[in-house]
Order: sequence, then structure tokens, then C-alpha cells
Amino acid sequence: MSGNSFGKMFTVTTFGESHGIAIGGVVDGCPPGLEITEADLQIDLDRRKPGTSRYTTARREGDEVQILSGVFEGKTTGTSIGLLIQNTDQRSGDYSNIKDRFRPGHADYTYHQKYGTRDYRGGGRSSARETAIRVAAGGIAKKFLKAVYGIEIHGYLSQLGPIKVDTVDHSITNTNPFFCPDESKLKALDEYMRDLKKSGDSIGAKVSVVATGVPVGLGEPVFDRLDADIASAMMGINAVKGVEIGDGFDVIEQKGSEHRDTLTPDGFTSNHAGGVLGGISSGQDLVVHMALKPTSSISVPGKTIDVDGNEIDIVTKGRHDPCVGIRAVPIAEAMLAIVLMDHCLRHRAQNAGVSTSTPVIPGNADK
Amino acid sequence: MSGNSFGKMFTVTTFGESHGIAIGGVVDGCPPGLEITEADLQIDLDRRKPGTSRYTTARREGDEVQILSGVFEGKTTGTSIGLLIQNTDQRSGDYSNIKDRFRPGHADYTYHQKYGTRDYRGGGRSSARETAIRVAAGGIAKKFLKAVYGIEIHGYLSQLGPIKVDTVDHSITNTNPFFCPDESKLKALDEYMRDLKKSGDSIGAKVSVVATGVPVGLGEPVFDRLDADIASAMMGINAVKGVEIGDGFDVIEQKGSEHRDTLTPDGFTSNHAGGVLGGISSGQDLVVHMALKPTSSISVPGKTIDVDGNEIDIVTKGRHDPCVGIRAVPIAEAMLAIVLMDHCLRHRAQNAGVSTSTPVIPGNADK
Amino acid sequence: MSGNSFGKMFTVTTFGESHGIAIGGVVDGCPPGLEITEADLQIDLDRRKPGTSRYTTARREGDEVQILSGVFEGKTTGTSIGLLIQNTDQRSGDYSNIKDRFRPGHADYTYHQKYGTRDYRGGGRSSARETAIRVAAGGIAKKFLKAVYGIEIHGYLSQLGPIKVDTVDHSITNTNPFFCPDESKLKALDEYMRDLKKSGDSIGAKVSVVATGVPVGLGEPVFDRLDADIASAMMGINAVKGVEIGDGFDVIEQKGSEHRDTLTPDGFTSNHAGGVLGGISSGQDLVVHMALKPTSSISVPGKTIDVDGNEIDIVTKGRHDPCVGIRAVPIAEAMLAIVLMDHCLRHRAQNAGVSTSTPVIPGNADK
Amino acid sequence: MSGNSFGKMFTVTTFGESHGIAIGGVVDGCPPGLEITEADLQIDLDRRKPGTSRYTTARREGDEVQILSGVFEGKTTGTSIGLLIQNTDQRSGDYSNIKDRFRPGHADYTYHQKYGTRDYRGGGRSSARETAIRVAAGGIAKKFLKAVYGIEIHGYLSQLGPIKVDTVDHSITNTNPFFCPDESKLKALDEYMRDLKKSGDSIGAKVSVVATGVPVGLGEPVFDRLDADIASAMMGINAVKGVEIGDGFDVIEQKGSEHRDTLTPDGFTSNHAGGVLGGISSGQDLVVHMALKPTSSISVPGKTIDVDGNEIDIVTKGRHDPCVGIRAVPIAEAMLAIVLMDHCLRHRAQNAGVSTSTPVIPGNADK
Repeated sequence: MSGNSFGKMFTVTTFGESHGIAIGGVVDGCPPGLEITEADLQIDLDRRKPGTSRYTTARREGDEVQILSGVFEGKTTGTSIGLLIQNTDQRSGDYSNIKDRFRPGHADYTYHQKYGTRDYRGGGRSSARETAIRVAAGGIAKKFLKAVYGIEIHGYLSQLGPIKVDTVDHSITNTNPFFCPDESKLKALDEYMRDLKKSGDSIGAKVSVVATGVPVGLGEPVFDRLDADIASAMMGINAVKGVEIGDGFDVIEQKGSEHRDTLTPDGFTSNHAGGVLGGISSGQDLVVHMALKPTSSISVPGKTIDVDGNEIDIVTKGRHDPCVGIRAVPIAEAMLAIVLMDHCLRHRAQNAGVSTSTPVIPGNADK
Repeated sequence: MSGNSFGKMFTVTTFGESHGIAIGGVVDGCPPGLEITEADLQIDLDRRKPGTSRYTTARREGDEVQILSGVFEGKTTGTSIGLLIQNTDQRSGDYSNIKDRFRPGHADYTYHQKYGTRDYRGGGRSSARETAIRVAAGGIAKKFLKAVYGIEIHGYLSQLGPIKVDTVDHSITNTNPFFCPDESKLKALDEYMRDLKKSGDSIGAKVSVVATGVPVGLGEPVFDRLDADIASAMMGINAVKGVEIGDGFDVIEQKGSEHRDTLTPDGFTSNHAGGVLGGISSGQDLVVHMALKPTSSISVPGKTIDVDGNEIDIVTKGRHDPCVGIRAVPIAEAMLAIVLMDHCLRHRAQNAGVSTSTPVIPGNADK
Repeated sequence: MSGNSFGKMFTVTTFGESHGIAIGGVVDGCPPGLEITEADLQIDLDRRKPGTSRYTTARREGDEVQILSGVFEGKTTGTSIGLLIQNTDQRSGDYSNIKDRFRPGHADYTYHQKYGTRDYRGGGRSSARETAIRVAAGGIAKKFLKAVYGIEIHGYLSQLGPIKVDTVDHSITNTNPFFCPDESKLKALDEYMRDLKKSGDSIGAKVSVVATGVPVGLGEPVFDRLDADIASAMMGINAVKGVEIGDGFDVIEQKGSEHRDTLTPDGFTSNHAGGVLGGISSGQDLVVHMALKPTSSISVPGKTIDVDGNEIDIVTKGRHDPCVGIRAVPIAEAMLAIVLMDHCLRHRAQNAGVSTSTPVIPGNADK
Repeated sequence: MSGNSFGKMFTVTTFGESHGIAIGGVVDGCPPGLEITEADLQIDLDRRKPGTSRYTTARREGDEVQILSGVFEGKTTGTSIGLLIQNTDQRSGDYSNIKDRFRPGHADYTYHQKYGTRDYRGGGRSSARETAIRVAAGGIAKKFLKAVYGIEIHGYLSQLGPIKVDTVDHSITNTNPFFCPDESKLKALDEYMRDLKKSGDSIGAKVSVVATGVPVGLGEPVFDRLDADIASAMMGINAVKGVEIGDGFDVIEQKGSEHRDTLTPDGFTSNHAGGVLGGISSGQDLVVHMALKPTSSISVPGKTIDVDGNEIDIVTKGRHDPCVGIRAVPIAEAMLAIVLMDHCLRHRAQNAGVSTSTPVIPGNADK
């Protein structure tokens, strides 16, 4: 109820502040018998980790995840899975200058007014550090989806400032620090980021995630629609200001005859809908896009107020990504995995024993 | 769990199919003592109702809402509020030709595969008719928000196909069948829709909703963020394919120095964030945009398959809006009201008795 | 959140006051394909209905349930099921004398203080009339449990005041107005109730419910334990003050060597546990007992206070059961069915695709 | 959904197995500004800890709780509170003889059949060790209830086998290893337990919990009734087989004229109801009783089956309490505190700003 849990059947609860002792979480609802190790979860944690390139923050977060429970002899037991990541890089002295002031674009002001208090060290609970636990939990979901349903999830940077990717080659995405799937744009990105860094400013980005192998029938028809849950999951990622399914905002200028995806005996002939019809997965690829605002912590000077309402100057120093959007790629993948796993489990419950549906389009069946 | 409920503290549960006996719902969590009548709810139901202009479907839905419980001597009692709208215009014979086929762009195929059965009459549960109950429930929320917090909610059409509104004058919005807030565009809209109707095609739209008077501090920091809940609420409206908060997808090309909203002793100097920082309302206007796909039911001929997988021709006849986006305006307002009321109630619980915060920006206080 | 919903995967939401227009509810989560008719639900509604014997209240409630949605061509569709029962016997004039006073043993005082207002007509929301919807919803669950799992549920009166049943013969239970399973006690019950009625007083009762055919494995290990959910369901029935699983309060004086149920290759040799071990069903019969307080509305004069705090005399006149416990039998059955169905659906989700367990005791398998 | 969370507004989620690396949990929904330290929580953890007397198990659990998040500069921040207790006493070798067999009265069989696998070391997730986290979470709730509402919670042993307490003196309860509030029974208890230990058998118990200072108005009227939530909380404690509110099962033989509690201008004259009317607190003391079965692990030889269905002999050796009921006292207190805090927060949300009620009985007001 205080918003630290996500998912109904597969539930992820997180805790922890940026500069506290540790961050952690509880993953509840994973079926028994799934093989899982800490190394499985570490893969995406390392992808998310800052300090892996010169374009992301130089902080060393050392995100070593520990599985504390729910896994026995290498397999899940069906009970709750406790996850823990120690905070190894706590520099308490760094943050005294932000203690009493509201950094523009940050959650300092809203936390202060909501709670009457806040852990100001490194953003406290509002820090993106919390997303490490979402990534670890998403790793469990990814493994389940792949093992049981054959679902795979691929995220990538689709735009950074003015630079848009033209082609999407998943084999390229993880070979560069931008999660860029278009090799021809790497040089431009490199130059753009170098100039940006010099200027002390930051830039927005667009991130896309695609899930393949999604069975037809996931999602509820009215409120817990698959697209609505995805929208919530993505908009809940720090800095996200917009979410699209399929053609997204392009549909505004589309005609019905242009937008509708034709069904044939062999499947759909297009995917304007992005894999969701009436809130329910259609068996096509799920296609999700999101817009991320530029990093708020920049060294370009600005003005703000302090907790007493006085006007003051502000320059954010320290180690910050000039484009927070880049690191959102593994987070967005994790959240999509969590949503899909939740709906896979729900769907199984819903079809309990009474009715069965025969797949109309071959290979497009639910499990 | 089967997705017919929305909201945690203020919960709306709906039931009903397009051509069943009735649609209805339960509104749970409204505090006692709120003055409410059926006439209050009818205002927005009439705004949403089709058949009110020649551009929306000619069906007469006769949405007369009945309050069955939870209101006594003109005031809410704090118990659950039952809502009922009879389906007066059931033409069972109309739908035999869609019984065994999947209309492209509709939920026919996904429902058939999810459930192994479906109420094919008029789209059954997937029909936008269900949203009448959301609008009625939203009417209760609107009344509460206005009475207790002074919050007002204004929706409008911001774009229809290629026609974008330039100015937003809320006094214009409800004087025309397009919910268009820009008087200078009414003629163009009228001509565009006339041509569209002739062509038998449909068009997408952009709808915006703004809430004023929102107190600072609504929303949770991690998962039930105010923006995430809004994204879920809006993406859950039939035909919505994209949701934006504040500058939305424009942030991709914005610099940090350009995007960040400066705080001054008198408040913020801009509102790129759209009223949410770190998932929590900032006290500024909440600004939400959404993209709605063109109506799938068009009289332009197309191809599809039937339930046995055979290819067939399809032409959707009957009474359908050429732009479903228009009627989404009161629905979007209702959903925003429901989300805000939910968070107003949650916020009260969270601050129970221990801590109090002094408003830093005058007039920007929580209640 | 305001407590008008029960169940997580199979959710029942109710609304309605005793003397309002109607009572109703929404049943969410029933899988598609289940054959269900209003007549199926009417069976238990008629069993619960007052006025069926001279020992229960003479009010004619006329509980005719209508299914408004979620059932198409005789089968559930998987969408939410709307239920409605009109209130036909509203005598508004009867209740003016209780408007401003708190009847002892009733919820008048607590409602008044909780909400600052209350619908005083016939107890409003606190009236047992609301349980008619639980019974209707339970009828759906019973049908599902029987069809898919072979589970049957039998409730009965096990004690009324000093009269305890000695034998339980389910074929007797529904042949008498007491739901008494022991033919040899019918005469004593009849005489006791006749004397009681003359005295104007009321009496408590013990009700038992047994479920047979329950598969092993239902219930969660820590919080949503099957026994905990049953305890909540039963204690939530009006007038219930105690709940037992299996031997219940008798275990206080039992030794471990006496209480533990021995497992053999052919099953358990006893059932002190009442079918639950560690919160999870063991495949044995589920055995639940509950204690119901005597009816609070009696014609024996007493004292109380009015809403202004003044001491006043009170004699409750009107049509009231001298033993509310009797009519609780079908309600308790319904609630047990709802709990079991919820856990059957949850269990299916939990075991999604990864692990399967072989039944150790033949015939004691999960489905 | 997999049952590792309890509470709606104040939510406790736990993880961890008896012999894993650690047990832990997340407490979500505590308002900001509450002073809390690890020492506050340690008080009840030490009361619950085994090995503190010769009548409870000799294992040294070393329950040192760590607060990992949600508390800053000694006060809660309003964000989720992470709790961790390392498992220091893991003797992995001890449990090889129970790996493949189902101990009677334990959850071995039901876990094995539910999940197809189980962490057999020390009972794994089904071990009462998990309740240490409930006790720590309850410590937070206790502190809140006392600070904000003046509510105090006192648990005690009310019966052990044939020995019933006659008087309840809370100042005695924590001075003896039995949590017995009646000094005159200490000698009898001591002798009884000594004999029991010699015999290798175990015994059941009755535990009671009383909350004082409870405001009127807590609890929902239909499903999340205060008594129903308490029943769920108590029945969810390991070994509990029965729960009573107020007079509990004694009401079966009570007359209405005897049971009903009379209201006077100065308050109620009796408390048969145990502080709850219509599911809502009445402002009287909350009185709860529960029955706990005898420990299942005894050294009296018995028979059971192994995972392959073969009959085998079993003698449980090792360190076990002869009466698990005793240690349930702080657990029951903790669970009652969690339920009450949940409802205090919910109640605040429900009465948001519209209606206010004037206390009819002086001093019996809600806050």
C-alpha cells in the first residue's frame, strides 16, 4: 500500500536507500523447481551497474546480489526469495551540501513535503540504486519465462537526443556501452556524449523493449490489462515520462484501414498494435517504447530554494550519468519480465480445469 | 485478480457486457458524509454517451445510472456504493455475422484464445460500454476531490488526425461535440470528420487531461508512483496506445538544463515534469496526454480469419464512431479522478499522527 | 480496502443495505466454461432465507437472485459475474424507534462512531441480509469445486444452547428447519425453541462445516494459510465469536502422542488436525467449527443509551430469529467454498509448469 | 499471493528458512517520524527466543535483528523498513534422518505434495523460526500504537494442559518462563513440565492477548472485520487450532439477555463481546484467546511413511519445546499489534475530511 511492492501473483517487494547499509527485496510467487543461481541474476546486474564505461557514473556500486532464501539445492522451493545487496560505497560526507536544499528535477522537494523528513544521502529511497533489486528480481522472471514459455526479452536504446537508431540488431546491443543495437550509430553516440560531458549538461533518451515468444491470452480485459500493467511498470522507472505500446503516439494520425493488423491463417501480417489487443496479448511480439528525461544532476549552474524557502544557487557536482536513459535498458527488460511472469501465472489460474481453447493460429498457443 | 477492479484505497469494480441485461459496479472506499446524487453522476455519463452528435455512434445507450446502496439521505455512508445501468438497446439479431469471426483490431481473437469462449454480442466485455461505469465512479471521485481538496479535472481533445489544437480554453471544451478547447479548429474538425465518414474510414486522436489544485505529496516513491498509476489508468482505456506525463516523448531531445523546472520561493517557474517528481505530486498542475488508435470497426473492406482459421472477407457495418478518441475525454477525466482520490486517501493514512510537514511553497500544501 | 471484498484469485465484492433498493455483488475470477444458472444459486439462497420455518424470522425476503453478466449461453465467460437481489420487503416505517438509539449487542454504536452516520433501517449494511450475496457467490464456488475437483461441502448445526448433536448424518440435515444432522435431537430442539420464543429470549449455537474430496496442497505456508483464511471467512460471518479447525480448543489438554495423526501408506489413521498441516491441506476432510452468539434483538427489556448519550429503556420488537446460528449453516458452507476455490486457483498458478509432485498417498493427489 | 505478506495498509512480508543464511522481512506502510531502534525490537525477540529457560528448546538462535532501511537519524522515513536476522546456528548435519520422511503432525507431507520439493533442514520455511520476523515487525507496530493511540498489548499463557490460570496480573507475566500471569500456578506449571519432559511427550496450551486503549471504529463492516483479521492473524501462527473473541465458544450456551453488553452513559457494563461489535472495535478492551496444539516433535516413538510411501518408525530427537504454546505469547502480541496498526491507518484514510463523529461515550473516541 505504500508502494514498495509490484505484481499480484508474482510479487516483488523492495527496500533500501542509496547510502544505507544494504538494499534488498522479496520475490514472492515463483513456482518451485526453477533452477536459479546468484550468477544468473548477476548478469543483468552487471549490465545495469554504473562505472562500466566512461559515459556512466564513475561510482563503484559493487552490486553483488545474495539469495538468502527460497532456493534449495539450486532450485526454487516455492517460498519467498530474499535478495540482498550490500551498499559498499557509502561516502556519507559527500552529501552535506544537499541536505537542506531541493535539487531541481529531483524528488527532494516532493519527499520533503510528503514525509516531513527524508534520507538526503544520495537521494535516499528515490535513488535509481533501488532498481538494482528490480533487475535481480527480473532475472528470476526472465529465467522462468525462457524455461517454461520460451519467451525472450530484448531491450535497447532507440534514440539518444537527436540520434535515432535505424536498425535493430540484438547481437550488437550488449557489445557497446550505449545498449545501441545499430552499429552505424556508435561513433555518433560516442562523439555526442563526449561533447555533452564537456558542456556539463545531460540529455534524454528513448528505450525500447521487445518480448518474443509471448503466448496469446495474457492480460485481463478491463483493468489489469497487459498494456496497462506494462505502462505502470515502465512509467514507474525513474525518469520515464512516456510509454508507448506498438505504434504509440503515431496512431494519432493513422487511419483505421492503415492501423488494423490483418489476421491470416498463418498469423498477423503487421504489428501496429504491438502485440496487445483489448488488453490481452495476441501472440505477436510485444513492443514497448519509453521516453526518459535528461539527468537532473548537471554541473550547469541553476537556482532553487532550500527547506526554509530561501532562493539559492545550485550546481550539482559528483558522479552522475549524463544520460540516465542508457542504464534503463536492463531495468525496462526486468520490469517487462516481471509483468509477463505475473500474467503467465495468473492466466494458469484463470483457466483452471474447465475450458480449454484450441489455438487458431498454429504456434500461437497458450501453455 | 481477474482485472475488474481498480484502485487500492478507493476501489472501483465493474461488471457487465455490452448487450447483457445491465452493466454495473461497486465503488468501495468513499469516506462517509459526501453529498452525492444520481444527477451528479449523470452529467459525465451524458458527456460520454454516444448518439449525442452526428460524429459519434447513433446507438442510443440511455445511460441512466442508479445508485443502489452506500448513500443514505443524500450522503455517502462509508459503505460500498452499488451502481447499475440497464442495457436498454439490446439488438441481439445484429451480431450473428461476427459470431464466428475475428474482426481485425478488435479483441475478438484474444478473448477467444484466452477464454475458449466469448460473448460476441457487441464486443461483450471488451466493448467500450463498460467505461460508463468508470465514468459514474469517476463522478464520485470528482465530487470528493473538489469538495475536500479543491482539485478540478479538465480533459480535452488535443489532436485529431492531422488537426492539432493551438489554445486550450476549458470554457469551449464542452460546447462542441469534439471536446475541442480551441474554437478556431471547430470548422476544420467538422469538415475532416464529414469527409472521413464518407470514406468509411476512421482516425486516431490525442486526448489530454489536466488536474489543478493537486496538493504536493500524492503518490508512492517506488511502485505505486502517481505517474505509474496514471499510466496504468490511461493505458487501460480502450484504444489507448501511449501515455505521457508533462513533456512526455519530447524529453528525448531535451537537455537537462532545459528540462528541469526551477523552484523559487513563489513556486516553480515551468512545468516540464507535468506535476510529478520522483513519482510524487509536486503541487503543480498534473498534465497527462494519451494517444488513441483509430476505430477498428470501419466499412472499408478487409480480410481476416474465422474461428476455424479460414480466411474470410470482412466489412464492419453498423453504428460506430469514426474517432473513438473523442468520447475518451470524460473517461480519461474519470480515471484521473479515481487515481487521485485513491492517493489522497492513501496519503492520509500514511501520515497518521506522527510527522507533519510545513508547506515550503505557500499555497502548495497537502491537506 | 474498505472491506467489501473477499478472496484474492476468486474475489467476491458485495454491496447493499438491508432496506435499500437492492443488494448485489461481483464475483471475479471464475474460470470460463463453468455451467451455471440462477437456479443453481437459488438452492442455497432458499436454504438461507428467513421465513421458511416458525423458528426463523417471519420476514419475507424473497431472495430471487439475478445473474447480470459473466454468463453467456449457460456458461461462465471468465469475466466478472454481476449478482443482484431486489429488496422487496422494505417497511421504512418500522425503524423510526431505533434511529437514534444504540441497540445492545448490535453494530449501531460502532457504526455511528466509525462513520458519523449510518443507515439505521433494519441494521443497514450490518444486517445479515448482506450474506445472501455471499451465499449466491458461494453457490458458484460450490459448483466449480464439485465439477473440477469433486469437493463437496456439508454444513450443519452441531449444538444449540445445551443440546449437542451426537451423530452426523448429512441426509438428515436439510430435512428439518434446524439443519440438524441428528434425527434423535429434533424433538428436543423443537421444544427448546418453543420455550425460548415464549420467553422472548435468544440462544447461541455451534455450527460445523466439513469439506470432502479436498486435494492435498491448498493454502500458503505463512500468512494466507488455508486455516487462517478459513478463520477469517468464518469469523467474518455475523455473530461468530469463535472458530476451530479439527480438534480446536480440545488440543489444549491433548498430549503430542495423542494429537498427532499417523500417516500410513493408505492415508492418515485419524484427523485431529482437521485436514490442515502447516497451513496446507493434507487431503483429509476439512473440519471447521464455529460459535455463534445469541441474537441480540430480543424482547426481554434492557437498558442502553441514545446518540446523545442519554440512558434509555429498550425492547426490540419485530421479526427476529431467536437463534441466528441456525441460518448461518448455508453461509458458512458458502464461505468455505469461496476460500477453497480461491486456493484451488492460486495453487494452479503456483505450480506453473516447472515442478510436479507425485502423490505419495494414492487418491490423495492434487489436480 | 503466495502468502508471505500480511496486512493491507501496514504490510509485513517475510522470507527465510530455519537453516538458511538468514531470515528477514519488509515492513511497509509505517508513517514517517516514528522513533525506532533495533533495541526496541530486540525486547520482544528476546522474549520469543528459545533457550531462555529449560522448558523451551535449547537451541541458541541468537536473534539479533538489523534494521537495513527506512529509518534515518533514529526515525522512520515513511519508506519500507528492511529487517534481517542472520541464522547463526545452522547445523546442517542434524537433519539427514528427516530428509526423506514425513514427521507426523508436521508440514513435511503437505509441503512435499504442494511443491514437489522442500527445504527439509529444520522444517525449512514451516519452522516457527520465521515468526521472529513477525515479532520484530510487531515491535514497530507496538511502538506506533503506544505513541500515537495509547494502545497497549498484553499476552499471557491462560492454560497449559490441565492447568488454568485464575487471575491475570500483567506484572507477573514476564517474570517467569511460562508467560503465566498467575503467580499461584507457577509451581504447578514447573512440576507439570518437568514430568512431561521426562515422559518425552508434549502438551497443548491456551494463550490470550488483550489490547487496552483501543479506539472505537477500527475494522470494516463486512469482510475485513477487525475480528476476522484477528482470527486470520492468530490462526496463522504455527500450531494454533482455534481462535476466540470475547466469550468465544461459551456463547453457544448463553442467552441473549445474558450475552449482550449494556451501554450506559459511562460506557459498557460488561465485555462479553470482547471489544468488537459488527466487526468494528467498540472502544472496550480487545480480548482474544487461542488454542495451540502440542508440539509434534516428541521422543515418544511413532509410525509414519517416507517419501516413497513406505511405512517407517519415527522418533524425533533433538531440541524441541515440550509446549510450543508458551513461546507463542510474544508472537500473538505482535500479530495483534500488526492487525491493529493496519486498521488504525485504514481508518484514518476512510474518514478523510468529510465527516466527523463526536464521541458519545467520553474517553472512548477515535483519533
